[in-house]
Order: sequence, then structure tokens, then C-alpha cells
Amino acid sequence: MKITELKAVLEKKKADFAVFYNSDSTSPNPNMFYFSGYNGLGALIVPRKQAPFLIAPEMEFQRAKTSAIKKVYSMEKKRFFESISKIVNKKKLKARSIAIDKSSFTLNAYRHFKKYFKKSKAKDISFNCIKLREIKTEKEISYLTKSCSYADKIVQKSINSFKDFKTESDAAAFLEYEAKKLGLGLSFNPIIASGTNGSMPHHEPSSAKIKKGFCVIDFGVKYKGYCSDITRTIYIGKPSANEKEIYNSLLAVQKNTISQIKENSKCSQLYDFVNKSLGSHGKYFTHGLGHGVGVEIHELPNLALNSNDKIMNNMVFTIEPGIYFPRKFGIRIEDTVLFKSKPIALTKTSKDLLIT
Amino acid sequence: MKITELKAVLEKKKADFAVFYNSDSTSPNPNMFYFSGYNGLGALIVPRKQAPFLIAPEMEFQRAKTSAIKKVYSMEKKRFFESISKIVNKKKLKARSIAIDKSSFTLNAYRHFKKYFKKSKAKDISFNCIKLREIKTEKEISYLTKSCSYADKIVQKSINSFKDFKTESDAAAFLEYEAKKLGLGLSFNPIIASGTNGSMPHHEPSSAKIKKGFCVIDFGVKYKGYCSDITRTIYIGKPSANEKEIYNSLLAVQKNTISQIKENSKCSQLYDFVNKSLGSHGKYFTHGLGHGVGVEIHELPNLALNSNDKIMNNMVFTIEPGIYFPRKFGIRIEDTVLFKSKPIALTKTSKDLLIT
Repeated sequence: MKITELKAVLEKKKADFAVFYNSDSTSPNPNMFYFSGYNGLGALIVPRKQAPFLIAPEMEFQRAKTSAIKKVYSMEKKRFFESISKIVNKKKLKARSIAIDKSSFTLNAYRHFKKYFKKSKAKDISFNCIKLREIKTEKEISYLTKSCSYADKIVQKSINSFKDFKTESDAAAFLEYEAKKLGLGLSFNPIIASGTNGSMPHHEPSSAKIKKGFCVIDFGVKYKGYCSDITRTIYIGKPSANEKEIYNSLLAVQKNTISQIKENSKCSQLYDFVNKSLGSHGKYFTHGLGHGVGVEIHELPNLALNSNDKIMNNMVFTIEPGIYFPRKFGIRIEDTVLFKSKPIALTKTSKDLLIT
Repeated sequence: MKITELKAVLEKKKADFAVFYNSDSTSPNPNMFYFSGYNGLGALIVPRKQAPFLIAPEMEFQRAKTSAIKKVYSMEKKRFFESISKIVNKKKLKARSIAIDKSSFTLNAYRHFKKYFKKSKAKDISFNCIKLREIKTEKEISYLTKSCSYADKIVQKSINSFKDFKTESDAAAFLEYEAKKLGLGLSFNPIIASGTNGSMPHHEPSSAKIKKGFCVIDFGVKYKGYCSDITRTIYIGKPSANEKEIYNSLLAVQKNTISQIKENSKCSQLYDFVNKSLGSHGKYFTHGLGHGVGVEIHELPNLALNSNDKIMNNMVFTIEPGIYFPRKFGIRIEDTVLFKSKPIALTKTSKDLLIT
């Protein structure tokens, strides 16, 4: 996506080409995937004035060929920068100034890089890349919409079956199974946090029995590489009047926050609004309000207190206020939202407190 | 694990303390997890002469407290190095020389780091860390053994049910579901590669129908953070005499390779042995022979042609020769092996060609 826009960045930065690499197939480089559709081992080179190309090891060659990048060269085993320099020389590309993503380029990779590009100047385009990714194209919006719709279906299915789950792991396994059956990836490991576990926003599902009380279900799939993110909190057993009230006040805050989003809304003000609306519970709002969603589950904009980001057209982000009472329980309600003239929740599962 | 050994590295490198950080909960830093048992957001500091401590954001505080590191400090939102420098100053730790892992430290993180540690010298301990991790402790061996035994059970179960799977995604979903039900993580996304897909070692399971012919099943779980890795290739339909012969010759090579491993065996020679044993099929052996397994699925030793590694006591690694005929099919047979005076396969699922 947005190869043309990336070339404009190179123009502005006076860089001869951009290089992205992926040395680890278990955690692919998101920018490389974004610009190429390829998430295997290798490197992507985007010259300012020529067509982009990939360098992939022999065993990944066929996979690389099926990506959006038509030209693929062979890479010598794990020697990224040596291979790149050979092909760059062969193509007679200038290499006076090379654009790299310093937020993923490691110090050791840079040392190797400098061996083969001694005289080149490295220019950081990490911020440019995440800014390009912040505003979604129509194609991306269609992928994200579909991703959210799959997440909805699976979360609803898990809620319908929730009585059958004995442990948090059972419920997490069910969510993953339903995703995988549909050939979908996961945005992140599902969070199922019951009882006191709910007070930890990033709790890992345990194989202990599901506890009575609030249970947080936080889930998202990847459809064609694009993430979704939804959280629903259900109640196991019989909630007290006070618990119902806490839930409903959080739900009202979540809905009000979404409905007030306008073009140019300041993310920090949205955060502040939630904090204030929660009143005395504001101090238990210890997690961020939300984050952009795309090829990564956490992108721009950043909806935090100290954020300088603003909401713009064609952004996709979460709104996920939560209250976490240490060692007691937690509640979080989260939608993935598209802003397109107005806020549109892409996740649509009912938010009324479900008691099971 | 091995905090004492890490302190000895700091002694040797004359570093005042080591710092590891984790800025992304979706791909935790393996060294930080290895030394602390904590894989959430935050940082681990290991002073040469004092007890190690963690810095974690408020929302991860409770989780950090349950790790192997007893002392946990609060971190200001995402400001790793500012928080670290404050606590380091408060503790009056020297910071003339700081050990970091340059293989995971990004250029941008380093820039932030230098803001708060202007006068400190950064010493790379990336290689020291992976060398410490290469030789497993008894506790690690028990975790890895258990991890392999779980992987065995789940792979066997999937083979028993294979007729029920319509698509590669179905089979992959089954494997993941069984893992998650047991509260286990995944070492990597399962590979199910049928027919021509098998010729791509890192094929992603598709939602297309499982094809007749060889089908590669590559799977591993994480038990207490420790990986396992096993590949079996089964046959869907009726194999020709030639196909059976190819399979059995690869199987013989795999078994012979394992049985000849001795203390100080050179990894490159093991690779070379496979290449030669495969005869005319050697040119289709386009993937590595194997890799160490631990908190990461790919660790030292590296069993490749150009490797300088040697097999030593208490190493755990894979032996996974494969032949990949481009656009035709692929076969891979893989065990996770512990070397402890002799080679001991930790994965035990039958390797006879299973026809289904």
C-alpha cells in the first residue's frame, strides 16, 4: 500500500531508496508488510525513482513471488545487507542517502548495514511510515471492516457458549479455534480475565476455573493482515445493584466518548473526558483510552492523556475505557471505530451487560 | 534464569548494570523474559553488585510482581529510560558503563537511552546472552521436555483426526485449540502444507481444500515460556512406490543424523552429512538442518552449512532435514533433541509414513 506516498517521502528526505528488513519470521516487520504484502524473511527495497523489489532467501522465494511486489531477487543465507548491496550495485542505484525505519532497525543490524554502505547517510523514516499508515485507504477500510465483523461473530459465539467453558484457557482456546477455522490470524493472544484477574488489563488466560463476577473478553482477528479489536465484559453469577451501576456508568461513558468524536478532536481531550466522566472511579482508569488499528494492533493515533494526535478522516482506532480495581475486578468495553465524517463503530456486538 | 552468570558477564565486561526493555506486549523481549520470567511491558535492570529489579507501568504492576524478580518499581507512561535513570540515580548505582542487547535495542530506543545516559558507555552483551541461553539448566530441560511431550500429544491427536479436516486452516485451528485448551502458548503459527504448498517450508495454512499427496505438519507449543518443535509429514491418498522411497530415504537420513551426534560434533558437518546423504535430492534441501530451542523457537546452536557452532551437553535443538521440490511437494521430518551425553529425542511421535 501507498508506495507512491512512500516515494514522495523519499523525495522530501532526498533519500535514494528505502530499505526494510525482516530477520525473524515469528515477528514480521509491519512496515515491510504494509508496503509489500510480504511478511516472510528478507528485505524490501523501494528506490525513489524505480520499481520496488524484494530480496528473499531461496526457501521463501515462492511466497515472496505471490506478494504485491513483482520483482524478487535471491538472498544469500541471512546476509541481508551484503545481498542488498550487490543488487543495488548491479542496478546502479545511487546510495548516498538511504531511508531506514529506526524504530525497528536494531543496533546490530545497523552495524552490518554500515559494513556494506560505509559512505551512505541513513535517514530515519519511522515516523513517516507510521503517519502514512495512520490514514487508511478504502481498501484497508474494507479489510478492517471485514476483520471487525469476523471478530464480532466469534465473540458473540463465545458468549453464547460461555457456560460450557470451565477455565479462562477454554474460552481463549474457543476464540482462537473459531478464528483459525476461518483461516484468520489473531491480532493478539485473546484475554479472558475473570474475577480478580480482570483488574490486570493484560492478564494471560489461566487454566484455573473461571471465577464468578465480571469477566473481560478481549479479542481480535487478522483478516488479510489487518487487525480488529473488541472487548466485552460479561457477568458470571448475579451482579449486585452496585456492580450493575458501575458497569452501566462505564458503558455510558464509552458511548458518549464515541458519539462526541469529531474531525480534529484532540485525543488527549477524549482521554480527559473519560477520566472526568468516571468521577471517583477515574483513578482506576489506569490503561490508555485507545489506539489506532491497522497492520499492527497498536498504531497511531494514540488516545492517551499526553498525546498530541488528532482524529482525522479515515482513521481507525479503538475506544476502550476500563476501570481496574486492584485485586478486586476489572471492566473494559471496547469498540474499533472508523472515523469517516462521523464515528462509525466497526464492532457491533451488543454492549448491554450480559449475565450468564 | 542464570542471573549469577549474567552478573559474571557484567564483571568481565566491566559494566555497572545491564538493561533490557520491552516496549511491545505482542512481541516480548526474550532475554528480559529469560532473566526475569516477566514478559510484560517495562524494563529489567541487573546491577553487577545488587539485586535485579523491574520497572513496569501501573497496569502491569501486579503481573510483574508475580515474576521471579522481587523488586518492582513504577514506570512513567512509556518513558522507559527517563524512569530508569531516576531509579538508578535514587539507588546511587554507577552508570559509567551499561550493558545492552544490541540485537534487540533499536536505533530509536538508543537515541532515547542516550538522552538520559549521556556519559555512559554502552556495551553489547547480545552474544553473551544467547550463549548463556544455549546451554540449558535442569529446570529448563524439564520445561522443554514437558513442552515436547505436549506437542507430541497434540500432533498425534491431529493425525488421528486428520480425515475430519477439510482445509489446512481446519487442521491448524485444531492444533491451536488443543494447545490453548491446555493453557499452552504456541512456539509459532502451525504450518499445515499439503500438496504443492509443501514445497514452501514456511507456507501459511490456507483455507483451500487439503490436497492429495504429502502433507507437512509443523507444530510446537510453549510450556512455561519454553518452546517445542516437531514436524511430521503424512500422506493423503495412495503414495507411489517412488514417493514412499523418497520419504523413507529422508527418514533414514534424519535418524542417522540424530544417532551420530556426539559431544563437540560440528553443526556444519551434520549439515554436510545430510546434504551428501540425500544424494541427488541434496539440491532440494533448501532449508536449514535445525536450530536451538528455548524461550525462543530459534536459538543457538545454528545447524547450518556455514555455522561454527558445536554440540555440547545440555543443548536442545531440532534436527529437521527436508526436501522441497519447487511447485511439486515437500517432505520434512523434525524432532527436538536434547544432547545429554547422548542425543535424546524429546519429541516421540512415530515417524513411519502415515497414510490417511
